[in-house]
Amino acid sequence: MSDQTKFVLDETQIPKTWYNLAADLPKPLPPVLHPGTKQPVGPADLEPLFPMALILQEVSAERYIDIPEPIRDVYRMWRPTPLIRARRLEKALDTPAKIYFKYEGVSPAGSHKPNTAVPQAWYNKEQGVTRLSTETGAGQWGSALAFAGALFGIDVTVFQVRVSYDQKPYRRALIETYGARCIPSPSKETDSGRAILARDPNSPGSLGIAISEAVEVAAKDPQVKYSLGSVLNHVMLHQTVNGQEAIKQFEMTGDDPDVIIGCTGGGSNFAGLVFPFLGLQLRGGRKRRIIAVEPAACPSLTRGKYAYDFGDTGHLTPLVKMHTLGSTFIPPGFHAGGLRYHGMAPMVSHIHELGLIEARAYHQKTCFDAGVQFARCEGIVPAPEANHAVRCAVDEALRCKREGRPETILFNMSGHGHFDMAAYIAYFDGKLVDQDYDEGELAMALAGLPSVAA
Amino acid sequence: MSDQTKFVLDETQIPKTWYNLAADLPKPLPPVLHPGTKQPVGPADLEPLFPMALILQEVSAERYIDIPEPIRDVYRMWRPTPLIRARRLEKALDTPAKIYFKYEGVSPAGSHKPNTAVPQAWYNKEQGVTRLSTETGAGQWGSALAFAGALFGIDVTVFQVRVSYDQKPYRRALIETYGARCIPSPSKETDSGRAILARDPNSPGSLGIAISEAVEVAAKDPQVKYSLGSVLNHVMLHQTVNGQEAIKQFEMTGDDPDVIIGCTGGGSNFAGLVFPFLGLQLRGGRKRRIIAVEPAACPSLTRGKYAYDFGDTGHLTPLVKMHTLGSTFIPPGFHAGGLRYHGMAPMVSHIHELGLIEARAYHQKTCFDAGVQFARCEGIVPAPEANHAVRCAVDEALRCKREGRPETILFNMSGHGHFDMAAYIAYFDGKLVDQDYDEGELAMALAGLPSVAA
Repeated sequence: MSDQTKFVLDETQIPKTWYNLAADLPKPLPPVLHPGTKQPVGPADLEPLFPMALILQEVSAERYIDIPEPIRDVYRMWRPTPLIRARRLEKALDTPAKIYFKYEGVSPAGSHKPNTAVPQAWYNKEQGVTRLSTETGAGQWGSALAFAGALFGIDVTVFQVRVSYDQKPYRRALIETYGARCIPSPSKETDSGRAILARDPNSPGSLGIAISEAVEVAAKDPQVKYSLGSVLNHVMLHQTVNGQEAIKQFEMTGDDPDVIIGCTGGGSNFAGLVFPFLGLQLRGGRKRRIIAVEPAACPSLTRGKYAYDFGDTGHLTPLVKMHTLGSTFIPPGFHAGGLRYHGMAPMVSHIHELGLIEARAYHQKTCFDAGVQFARCEGIVPAPEANHAVRCAVDEALRCKREGRPETILFNMSGHGHFDMAAYIAYFDGKLVDQDYDEGELAMALAGLPSVAA
Repeated sequence: MSDQTKFVLDETQIPKTWYNLAADLPKPLPPVLHPGTKQPVGPADLEPLFPMALILQEVSAERYIDIPEPIRDVYRMWRPTPLIRARRLEKALDTPAKIYFKYEGVSPAGSHKPNTAVPQAWYNKEQGVTRLSTETGAGQWGSALAFAGALFGIDVTVFQVRVSYDQKPYRRALIETYGARCIPSPSKETDSGRAILARDPNSPGSLGIAISEAVEVAAKDPQVKYSLGSVLNHVMLHQTVNGQEAIKQFEMTGDDPDVIIGCTGGGSNFAGLVFPFLGLQLRGGRKRRIIAVEPAACPSLTRGKYAYDFGDTGHLTPLVKMHTLGSTFIPPGFHAGGLRYHGMAPMVSHIHELGLIEARAYHQKTCFDAGVQFARCEGIVPAPEANHAVRCAVDEALRCKREGRPETILFNMSGHGHFDMAAYIAYFDGKLVDQDYDEGELAMALAGLPSVAA
């Protein structure tokens, strides 16, 4: 049907395996290092934090990893997610380009995050774990893990960055509706939190601080494991259900994407859409342009250093090689709380280093311009994070118009903005400002990177 | 597949016609009366408010009315909506019943309301109308019409009940994101609003007042038409896309609903799911139990009078025969703003009077109990309105358990609660109270019903 808008698959077509990009990388990922010895860590080093099944996925080189049936059984509550052609946006832009988006906002928590929250909760449950601790920024991840915890009877504690906790009471209410506990970070519940509060009782918090708190809880209590919503290899792996579905859905469209776009904070929604397509390319398929879009106020891929760094402010995590702004870097205020992380997933960093993807940074106002235009054409109000991908897709479509090229553009609509309407109110009130990060502060944060022999 | 959870249809299966229950009613609907002459109104009387195509639908006795392709083209942005089996809820209740729900929250505005907002905007546009005025309570309807207005280039003005305007800034932000204007009601922009404010400058407003304001704007300005999100026959008609899809989806399940449930405020989401099933019955098919669920604090079907009444507080609308609490009745505070209307759709009232449906009223706390249990099992956080349907579905499933009957239950999940999380916060804080309406006030409101010769 030539005017088809929405490409849906039934639940039997949810992928049966996750796709592991590590199997097809032209050069292997640098190893993860122990923060003390600076030697490569083994699975046993990670056991205090993660169940063994996830550790093995973290280091796996297998191309395909089976998705256990109980996890597919949960996925089918909302997956496969639709691939939608943005015909009204194309028309408004008067572009010869075709614009498609994969809509991950249909999940119960409203974003792509349950794709990994569900397997993480399930593997923990299989190993007998009954309590999980984690951090969240804007709250997409915290609500996703709370949802997964509710399904499998796991108690979840979420350390939410203080400024988001105060600004987004509805996201916190969602976390509590799923039965989890939500604590503003820095908190008095951990040494890491108390140390920060001692220096600054009004600290707005950061993802790096909240990670330290959540890791500390798990490290100190053998009953508790830790769960991370992005950055790690097994998180990227779980997210690939999305890109695999998109490949099947493109077979229905008769089109083939020339440009694939995702926003990047820790890298997980980007990886989820992009890795399966990149895998096709690395196994001899067609080369496509792949663009990672990040906030100009927290530009790890475009302005960070590719170096070993800690994942958290308190330096409790292993060292990973990634594009980083330095673990002490605190970005200025902006509304895409999910993109406020100092580092980038090692796998995403690695493929950027290998020249397999492009990266681009935007300030927030122009992203909201694009998001509002998208909402008025396509109905869906994007999350502030996803507005970065929309901005890039619109710019690429306008380039196609200038160049007279009927390219096919695909982007990931990683989540809806229902819990972020305060940001839209600020936008309409003219109160969104585009703050630059402090160059001096970045230089200082980068100077503080741990020294690791090359 | 025996363990299937989600029953999806592709967009080619969106119904091509709306179903008009009027064609199958055993007894015709009582006529709509002119408020002055108290004689039946003709199409010309309604022309100041509505485009002729909608007026003709309002009085049509045709069983099927074609859905114009441009409307189906918009429906495919989110329709067909999924039919989902609530397997985890069944398990938590340990019931032999099968519980299904039709999930209308996947629409861009998050509820069933765009099913009629889109055709209403389109028919107005076809007649050259460029401005629409309407009212909204909780904001589901206002945001749906704002969305539809954005698609067809129509300026939309929404009078939102003051108490909801203040309590739900995110819903208002959604209306504004779609480019519409949102005004708290009572306002100084209309005679009706000014009259209320003169008596009570702090009036919290009501749907009846907001309707008066919106109708007045349209009645006074030939450039503006009025749009109503519930109650009227053409609104019920448009909503039947949902029930028709549900019938097709049940063919995929191998089950057949014994009990069908919807919450009722003005009646539109209930009618949309129920009327197509009821039509099958009236044409000789199987009899099913059909239950309308309303709030105990605003119980038009269970405690109202079946009588001619005005649709608004200012008495600007025609008189319709319906279950009513009286147009001056103001319900006590509760969180399902979409169910705070003094009257019930004439078609829903009529079939209740004919004994074709049951009605039941619940206070809000028990509805939230059920809604939270549902969220923890099925992930979706229901709107406070939809929690009434969840409560009834759970109660029916528990009855099945007591009676050992493996019945099939279907309910309409009319919308998600992402914009209503303040109500969940109040629930968890123990601040939700079950207020009864004032019996004296109800008696007075009913005593004030207009006198109409039988």
